[in-house]
Amino acid sequence: MEAKHQLHSENYAADISSIKDAHGRISPFIHRTPVLSSESLNYIAGKKLFFKCECFQKGGAFKFRGACNAIFSLMDDQAAKGVVTHSSGNHAAAVSLAAKLRGIPAYIVIPKNAPKCKVENVRRYGGQVIWSEATMPSRESVAAKILQETGAAMVHPFNDGRIISGQGTISLELLEQVPQIDTIVVPISGGGLISGVALAAKSINPSIRVLAAEPRGADDAARSKAAGKIVKLSETNTIADGLRAFLGDLTWPIVRDLVDDIITVEDKEIIEAMRMCYEILKVAVEPSGAIGLAAVLSDGFQKNPAWNECKHIGIILSGGNVDLGVLWESLNK
Amino acid sequence: MEAKHQLHSENYAADISSIKDAHGRISPFIHRTPVLSSESLNYIAGKKLFFKCECFQKGGAFKFRGACNAIFSLMDDQAAKGVVTHSSGNHAAAVSLAAKLRGIPAYIVIPKNAPKCKVENVRRYGGQVIWSEATMPSRESVAAKILQETGAAMVHPFNDGRIISGQGTISLELLEQVPQIDTIVVPISGGGLISGVALAAKSINPSIRVLAAEPRGADDAARSKAAGKIVKLSETNTIADGLRAFLGDLTWPIVRDLVDDIITVEDKEIIEAMRMCYEILKVAVEPSGAIGLAAVLSDGFQKNPAWNECKHIGIILSGGNVDLGVLWESLNK
Repeated sequence: MEAKHQLHSENYAADISSIKDAHGRISPFIHRTPVLSSESLNYIAGKKLFFKCECFQKGGAFKFRGACNAIFSLMDDQAAKGVVTHSSGNHAAAVSLAAKLRGIPAYIVIPKNAPKCKVENVRRYGGQVIWSEATMPSRESVAAKILQETGAAMVHPFNDGRIISGQGTISLELLEQVPQIDTIVVPISGGGLISGVALAAKSINPSIRVLAAEPRGADDAARSKAAGKIVKLSETNTIADGLRAFLGDLTWPIVRDLVDDIITVEDKEIIEAMRMCYEILKVAVEPSGAIGLAAVLSDGFQKNPAWNECKHIGIILSGGNVDLGVLWESLNK
Repeated sequence: MEAKHQLHSENYAADISSIKDAHGRISPFIHRTPVLSSESLNYIAGKKLFFKCECFQKGGAFKFRGACNAIFSLMDDQAAKGVVTHSSGNHAAAVSLAAKLRGIPAYIVIPKNAPKCKVENVRRYGGQVIWSEATMPSRESVAAKILQETGAAMVHPFNDGRIISGQGTISLELLEQVPQIDTIVVPISGGGLISGVALAAKSINPSIRVLAAEPRGADDAARSKAAGKIVKLSETNTIADGLRAFLGDLTWPIVRDLVDDIITVEDKEIIEAMRMCYEILKVAVEPSGAIGLAAVLSDGFQKNPAWNECKHIGIILSGGNVDLGVLWESLNK
């Protein structure tokens, strides 16, 4: 499939060149996260697995790469006015931290029903919390008002070439750390992470397969691929709170063209993967972060002959921001 | 202090040469564990902290280094008869795994009251479980009987030069990964880990400080240092189940001469450090493994002017074998 497409920015919002630029820009600020492996998990999966631990990234998730690239890409006069976002999750903390490092204000619009720990994360990194109602229209209108008042720049969580480029830096590191990787399994939500990862990986090695892992209860990307156009769901239902967004107009073409398949998994498979990450890898991984392992262990992957030749599999553990109580409760359900 | 002592094997059971040999011997089998850092923890500690993650080592603890070195040091004809140990903790799993890799039998004497998960660990790695009563005399007599019957070699958990040399390989890696380290904080129990770490680190850089972290409820090493001779306790009481052993005749001289101080901490400080490892570093660390962080955050370290000049501190997260339920319960006590 990849041969049909030129992996250039004329076609897509990012390319290998913008991703390499991003890596140069953010390298002084990010952690080059380690890759872990486990013979026990290799045995269980029947594959060699390589876990890229973005849960150890600053802010506890890969989101810092994209936010850092977007914020350090701003011209000085634009940057001085600050940045705005209305995500309440890992992206909000990442934007706060990157803005703090650049020394500019970060205005974070947070719905009143957001979990306390996420609000605290934003404040800890110096973000200015601005409350909205829980609805998306309220979040967007509050953000628009701040944009107008401050002249700050919007930093979208995924539908932005600078964000996609930042997330793609994961592939540069991973393929340097483990050159024999033939497959990468990536959580999919709005598509920023997998878009960057796929663009970089397939530019470096066109034969690498990129597979998305998606919760059954928020399977808009799988439906979109099947329909050949962006499908949005009227509701989502999954423990993976970071995987509830829908594809954007910049991420969709990349997902459509470069993602080889989307593997959907049940929440109980995600929870079991979280347990394995904790007990075997000794790593705290949030549900959205553990889904790649869940996908590789699922029938959808194991029993599909198309993936028999996948031998060396990179799995992106995308984040580790899971409350211990939540982990414990979900494991005991 | 270190200038007074020649760090050679005439004085001690291991030296930098035996440690480098060990590293060559075990490198094909061990994980070169990553070093993690966190600006949040640096801020809390007022120091730059570098966490050497032996919780990611095979078997979930540093013990595999020593066991692997001891077992691969055996001559073929000796090795063929197998190995024996009567530890029921991480060392037993490490011996089982190393023996499996060498293709020889491992006889593991386990007291009847040992936790199920530790027995399962031994079995998973192919160790042959032989039951004893819970008392040390029973464990020793059962082990002696097996030694006699099989001609197998005893692999002591710490009081053995090959074990000390294996554990010392941690310093070789750590000082290569983070050359600016001026202090290393190490959990102390029987002293195998800290002996190897101190010998290697002080051979490479004599000005490096090596501090031991010990639970108040099992503070035999601190008492031994104070008394100038090995002190054993009639009982121990700590959540750190891996830190209840007493120094041996081979580890004591090294601890006496090369360990700059012993910092004792309360169990509640250990539990808080476990929480920080989970929530901030995103790493599962057992109580014995988290004690180094607890020590660095304790008044005994922070308020002692002797350690003001410690700026770049290596902390050995020695193991990650903690049941999630135990972690959750201890955090909620």
